[in-house]
Amino acid sequence: MHVIRIVGIDPGLRRTGWGIVESSGSRLAFVAAGTVTSDGDAPLAERLRQLHDGLERMIAEFRPDEAAVEATFVNRDAGATLKLGQARGIAMLVPARAGLAVAEYAPNMVKKAVVGAGHGAKAQVKMMVSVLLPKARYDSDDAADALAIAICHAHHRGAGDRLKLLA
Amino acid sequence: MHVIRIVGIDPGLRRTGWGIVESSGSRLAFVAAGTVTSDGDAPLAERLRQLHDGLERMIAEFRPDEAAVEATFVNRDAGATLKLGQARGIAMLVPARAGLAVAEYAPNMVKKAVVGAGHGAKAQVKMMVSVLLPKARYDSDDAADALAIAICHAHHRGAGDRLKLLA
Repeated sequence: MHVIRIVGIDPGLRRTGWGIVESSGSRLAFVAAGTVTSDGDAPLAERLRQLHDGLERMIAEFRPDEAAVEATFVNRDAGATLKLGQARGIAMLVPARAGLAVAEYAPNMVKKAVVGAGHGAKAQVKMMVSVLLPKARYDSDDAADALAIAICHAHHRGAGDRLKLLA
Repeated sequence: MHVIRIVGIDPGLRRTGWGIVESSGSRLAFVAAGTVTSDGDAPLAERLRQLHDGLERMIAEFRPDEAAVEATFVNRDAGATLKLGQARGIAMLVPARAGLAVAEYAPNMVKKAVVGAGHGAKAQVKMMVSVLLPKARYDSDDAADALAIAICHAHHRGAGDRLKLLA
């Protein structure tokens, strides 16, 4: 059975989580997960460079085949949305520059893929990530969310039903 | 007199304008300006890669010393703000990766630097760019705005009065 290595990325300016799974048929296996942080005291451009460099190192080390990023729900605070957009731009750029296709999923699809319903609580998502990937180890909520995004892509890749929310 | 080469960048997902000026004391000179576009039919990650590669080529060709990006006014539409944020993340990342300091200016500061008041119309900004840089040639409104951002940075660099709106 052909094995596909998928990286999920949960972008944020302060903390960007990433999680890698291997998918072959209906089987899933944990590979690695972690968090890239940026220095809150550094200028914005430098923080974006830190996120870029951390994600670039992760991709060079684990060589995933495909990437998935959450099409994060935009809230009412325009400043927070702009910040998130900047981090998200980097989170999509780095795998694209490495030649990976980058899929986007709405948050409800990600939750549904791991919890079985569109509105699971955050704790429930983490619990189900542990059930689906018993060997998973992660160092932040963002890394757990990133694993959930990777699981979602494992379920939906090739099915043509992923969202192109922001195209 | 020491000559500083400044690139101004006006980010947008569809069109990102750039403009380069040389500043020595109170003298300003036009160097180049242009527009990087992305293919509206391509996936978002690919569009961000197109913006990245275009800006990277521009910096490799013209080797500016410093960069300035507008801290664009965020509007009420969260989807548009997220898109702009993604393009803006790339616009700040590329010069940072090339080792340039990247300053941010509020739109009103940019207008004030070229028009002399905080609320000049777009046409007035273009007219004043032509007065301040008689040799300026540009291929889009975004490139003209980018030249205005570079002029703004030439006036304020080192003065410590530029905004850190999003730090």
